[in-house]
Amino acid sequence: MRIQVGTAAALLGLLVAACGNRSESGNGGDDASVVGLMNERGLSEQDVIAALKTYTPTGKHDEYYCFASGGHGGNLIVIGVPSMRILKYVGVFTTEPWQGFGYDDATIELLGSVKDGENRFTWADMHHPALSETNGSYDGKYIFVNDKANPRIGVVDLSDFVTKQIVGTELIQSEHGACFVTPNTDYVIETSQYPAPLGGAYAPIEEYNDKYRGAMIFWRFDRERGRIDTAASFAIELPPYMQDLADCGKKVSDGWVFCNSINTERAYGGTLEGKPPLESGSSQNDMDYLHCINWRKAEAVAKAGKTETIAGMRTISLKTAIAENLLAFVPEPKSPHGNDVTPDGTGIVVGGKLDTHTTVYDTQKIAAQIEAKQFVGEDPYGVPILDFQKSIKGQCKIGLGPLHTVFDDKGFAYTSVFIETVVAKWSLADLKVVEKIDTHYNIGHLVAAEGDTVDPDGKYLIAMNKWSLDRFAPVGPLLPQNFQLVDIGGSSMNLLYDMPLPLGEPHNAQIIKADKLKPIETFKPSGMEPILGKVDPHAVADGQQRIERQADGVHVYMTAIRSHFKPDIIRVKEGDMVHLHITSVEQATDATHGFAMGGQDVNVSLEPGKHCNISFKAHRAGVFPFYCTEFCSALHLEMAGYMLVEPR
Amino acid sequence: MRIQVGTAAALLGLLVAACGNRSESGNGGDDASVVGLMNERGLSEQDVIAALKTYTPTGKHDEYYCFASGGHGGNLIVIGVPSMRILKYVGVFTTEPWQGFGYDDATIELLGSVKDGENRFTWADMHHPALSETNGSYDGKYIFVNDKANPRIGVVDLSDFVTKQIVGTELIQSEHGACFVTPNTDYVIETSQYPAPLGGAYAPIEEYNDKYRGAMIFWRFDRERGRIDTAASFAIELPPYMQDLADCGKKVSDGWVFCNSINTERAYGGTLEGKPPLESGSSQNDMDYLHCINWRKAEAVAKAGKTETIAGMRTISLKTAIAENLLAFVPEPKSPHGNDVTPDGTGIVVGGKLDTHTTVYDTQKIAAQIEAKQFVGEDPYGVPILDFQKSIKGQCKIGLGPLHTVFDDKGFAYTSVFIETVVAKWSLADLKVVEKIDTHYNIGHLVAAEGDTVDPDGKYLIAMNKWSLDRFAPVGPLLPQNFQLVDIGGSSMNLLYDMPLPLGEPHNAQIIKADKLKPIETFKPSGMEPILGKVDPHAVADGQQRIERQADGVHVYMTAIRSHFKPDIIRVKEGDMVHLHITSVEQATDATHGFAMGGQDVNVSLEPGKHCNISFKAHRAGVFPFYCTEFCSALHLEMAGYMLVEPR
Repeated sequence: MRIQVGTAAALLGLLVAACGNRSESGNGGDDASVVGLMNERGLSEQDVIAALKTYTPTGKHDEYYCFASGGHGGNLIVIGVPSMRILKYVGVFTTEPWQGFGYDDATIELLGSVKDGENRFTWADMHHPALSETNGSYDGKYIFVNDKANPRIGVVDLSDFVTKQIVGTELIQSEHGACFVTPNTDYVIETSQYPAPLGGAYAPIEEYNDKYRGAMIFWRFDRERGRIDTAASFAIELPPYMQDLADCGKKVSDGWVFCNSINTERAYGGTLEGKPPLESGSSQNDMDYLHCINWRKAEAVAKAGKTETIAGMRTISLKTAIAENLLAFVPEPKSPHGNDVTPDGTGIVVGGKLDTHTTVYDTQKIAAQIEAKQFVGEDPYGVPILDFQKSIKGQCKIGLGPLHTVFDDKGFAYTSVFIETVVAKWSLADLKVVEKIDTHYNIGHLVAAEGDTVDPDGKYLIAMNKWSLDRFAPVGPLLPQNFQLVDIGGSSMNLLYDMPLPLGEPHNAQIIKADKLKPIETFKPSGMEPILGKVDPHAVADGQQRIERQADGVHVYMTAIRSHFKPDIIRVKEGDMVHLHITSVEQATDATHGFAMGGQDVNVSLEPGKHCNISFKAHRAGVFPFYCTEFCSALHLEMAGYMLVEPR
Repeated sequence: MRIQVGTAAALLGLLVAACGNRSESGNGGDDASVVGLMNERGLSEQDVIAALKTYTPTGKHDEYYCFASGGHGGNLIVIGVPSMRILKYVGVFTTEPWQGFGYDDATIELLGSVKDGENRFTWADMHHPALSETNGSYDGKYIFVNDKANPRIGVVDLSDFVTKQIVGTELIQSEHGACFVTPNTDYVIETSQYPAPLGGAYAPIEEYNDKYRGAMIFWRFDRERGRIDTAASFAIELPPYMQDLADCGKKVSDGWVFCNSINTERAYGGTLEGKPPLESGSSQNDMDYLHCINWRKAEAVAKAGKTETIAGMRTISLKTAIAENLLAFVPEPKSPHGNDVTPDGTGIVVGGKLDTHTTVYDTQKIAAQIEAKQFVGEDPYGVPILDFQKSIKGQCKIGLGPLHTVFDDKGFAYTSVFIETVVAKWSLADLKVVEKIDTHYNIGHLVAAEGDTVDPDGKYLIAMNKWSLDRFAPVGPLLPQNFQLVDIGGSSMNLLYDMPLPLGEPHNAQIIKADKLKPIETFKPSGMEPILGKVDPHAVADGQQRIERQADGVHVYMTAIRSHFKPDIIRVKEGDMVHLHITSVEQATDATHGFAMGGQDVNVSLEPGKHCNISFKAHRAGVFPFYCTEFCSALHLEMAGYMLVEPR
């Protein structure tokens, strides 16, 4: 770190000006010097620069949004960059009462979209968010997120930061390789991880090789509707390896998707039965298989009806995929993890986590060999295999445990190196490492500003470290992760900020320029139901407030405005079904109300203009206060009422 | 803001040294000057100082913890001060899957501790956290939190940041005035807000004056056990006003608790029935009543058995409370909100939210008058009333809408002024405002470092602003709140930092010196169940792993260690109850595992040494992968196994 003083005269001016205002007080408080504060707080020169590069004063907005998965928190995390302040947790798969997510009829239904028999899922394991793209660039419209545990995809609309849809299929029983979008968001890709019989049937583990399978699912995104079209989606059956991360080709490689695999040994553990654990059973072969899939060809095959339907999903069988020449393998160094296509689409960077190299594959060589059927063998399921050496551009000697790679705007790649616990910067031109920076501790994924698009921004990189150990004031055995912001805008990398993750275990993230997003401030017109995306049939305007006894129970048509509900007294009988239809008739930005009722587990958030429907049974006689949960005005405590449940 | 240059020579030295290292690159990256960055990022001199006062470099710990309520998020937020980084969200009343909170048998039972009939509560409305105290100072051992919606108290142990207990009573149907602790944490105080028949019965709203009541509950804390002793707890019946915030006397006023009330008009709305809304109905009287309660006398009365038991709670009736002279009122300006006892215990500061003054009551005058029964009247329920003028020290003309007050170490009070949207600093000695600082926007509570104890630290204050409007990059109609960190260590107040609240709507917070907390790093010995607080009867040591079919189902005794589970294959039959007993046999700090199983909604967090029990039904035949949800090693994806459910 060198402090540049091209502006020494100006800084000197600042000193002189400040001298004129010399104060009588000590070090603290309103009077302080840069050097005094450096001494007092133990800040180095590099810290001073880092502070000034990240501090974002009141009213100034961050330059980027970072969207990070919440891991097994099941939510989506929105972080401002470079300040590294968390702006929002967005409920996607897990109920979240501040947002009222999972508490009104619409979000209860949304969260029940995918079930296993009668089992609802109350959490998810979110790994890899994917922003919608147009021509390979983020367009700021949608973000897609996955659930590893109970295979599902969530669609979040970035106009209001609300989850609009959750889809899933029983075809697969777990996933990991999701979400990845094709360059124009035609498809959202989700790939199984732990093989199982397709469709959810039972088969003994001893029949693993014959009966267990993987699959890659292509969820068709209907941009017009802003929803996934499940009927237009399809899948490809894959061998029972553990398919892992994928990335879509771009520019010259548009039309392809590349997917790692591990455990081509087809081990399945058996630690109590005298067998080695999966971690060693799956690490025997020197090479696993990079899956190369021609998704445009697959799309045509699916459209031609050459599929079988399993658990409702049109599926291209492995046999058909091979026959149609839309799937081929290239060997990749054992137990690969990251799989990242270069901005120009000519290369794929694979990090082998038990390797010391990143391998750069050549998308054009791969495509040409597949087209010409220049195969050197096949796997036990008949999938053709390309020659390794003929398919690569080369390898970069990077350090122990390379995982994921992102890119900047100057031809450099940045790879997270787990075991060495560094970020390695290397040149795509000559495959040579130019610099490394330490990370604390155990880096997993990393993300750079628009760094997995066709036009990376450079500037910022975040190392997503799994452990934080001694980095932060301690909070018991369960510690936060550590997102470290690194400046990659200059000639060398510099650490700018350590950010603890207070909830969730993010795996991957994407960083988008803030000005690409134009979120709405209120729901307009009043009565909008966000998931429905239009005015709710039960929306209530001022003057229409009423209570009606209907065949299915008591319907309460209510409005909320500072600082009262109308009606504020609800009279029902024990055992009645109660249907609340509440419209916020506010239109001032940030004038959010809530509606909560004790004893009934009722709680919703009513942003300006929003409408909510809530149904519940008045399960016992009694007096049930309800109130606004938001500090909406000085008289917010008085924004309250009673539900009176008369005994039968 | 003035930059002090007592250290000009040193800063000049830095400039000269830096000149020698002048770089060739531009503004960005690794080479930058203070002034260059000020220009580039639009930072003022005050911003530079603020940045250096808050920026906390990698590995350096924050000086304070701020514990903020999560509002209707139902969780507890731990924030580092001065960096304003959120260190942890602690699940208390709401399930939180990252922590596995609400997913294993022990936490499912914990969250079901208080129910309304068969209704479980899946959220809470947390308002006022209270750190445990010894002699009126924070001792860093426990923190107590409340649920306004479904009256409950949660006990969080600060040795492991885990919620250990949730208690509640059907005596009251809502609350707000919680938690407040007596100076040695003998009792945790919880007061009802919206009156209702005590015990949960029905009564027509028209019988409000006769049948509806409030109550203050004294939950007895057993410090030895670290749990509330419900049998040793008691309550006092109160008139059907809306009791609000309270504070306990300290030092000279130890033994007293003071509680605001609003709506002494006993209005209850009726907006659809032609009546005025509560907000105006409850704002008719010029004065409401400050409730003064002699809790030591109440404790003696309860111990003497002069109580009736309602919904399991020993309750001192209003009649008895009056007869025993343990309850009296003092008028307070209409619709008060804040109620804060001064550090020396001689004063109580009340902020009337429709007033322009703070009123400072004199605890000694109040106690003396009550002791001497110098009453000037009584309320409709016979509660004696003291003379207002004879009970106060004076008033401070503060601005429109004063709410809450905190204190520093130099004799100043700081009051949040909602309508004027400022923090007003004023002198307790002469009751004169000395300075105001703008807040953005709509300040509610405020908190100063240890600012509600007998020995405030001064230094930092946080304004908890309800709206953020344009302060941060937009995230849709539901916006974060804005915690503004203010430097109160110097002769004038300076804004240091704007912090968005990404989840939850905090009401109040407390700030404690970080070195008072000594959290554990791992659960020792292995097999600890955190809520039980000891080694679980089902804990599993290495060598004891097994699967046993018992009368109540299949019991799986499993260990977790990097990077495998043992056993990793579980064979059961369709319809079997499955009981997983999983011990993490790790002891390395931060070596956390998770255990998740698809299709079954199973998900727990296994910090080093922790044991979890999980029960579920194998509801259908099939193959169910399970895996570690944490990125625990390079081979974390391989830490997996299968549950095989054979058809019947």
